[in-house]
Amino acid sequence: MKGIITVVLKQDILDPQGRAVMSSLQGLGFGEVQDVRIGKSIEIELDGLSVDEADSRLRRMCESILVNPVIEDYQIEIVED
Amino acid sequence: MKGIITVVLKQDILDPQGRAVMSSLQGLGFGEVQDVRIGKSIEIELDGLSVDEADSRLRRMCESILVNPVIEDYQIEIVED
Repeated sequence: MKGIITVVLKQDILDPQGRAVMSSLQGLGFGEVQDVRIGKSIEIELDGLSVDEADSRLRRMCESILVNPVIEDYQIEIVED
Repeated sequence: MKGIITVVLKQDILDPQGRAVMSSLQGLGFGEVQDVRIGKSIEIELDGLSVDEADSRLRRMCESILVNPVIEDYQIEIVED
């Protein structure tokens, strides 16, 4: 089973990396781009857990080291093999 | 409309950042973790395009600057407002 955690900056936190990518895209002619936000996608392969256990363990991993709750939000998706 | 691009390292490319996170998680008692891979999640806000146009424009953005096809794979998801 695999957990996919998407970590994004909270909406009111400035994202300079996203800004830089937005400027580059607009400069390349992609004028339809209104905003860019860049986050992390963390794929974690898990062994021997039920879906409910996996969800609760992944949440604890996020709270321990994967996410900074002051500036980041996260969501968890679980994909069964 | 929003395009969410997930960029991950190809399966046969070593991911040292993922390795480091895996060791830390295992050290913290998350022994069920078998592998960790870390990629990017890029959210792009788009204006005035149909879903088909958005898909094709996002693909061109990936090929221009967002993805390095030698070492990375990507997938595109489109979320309508």
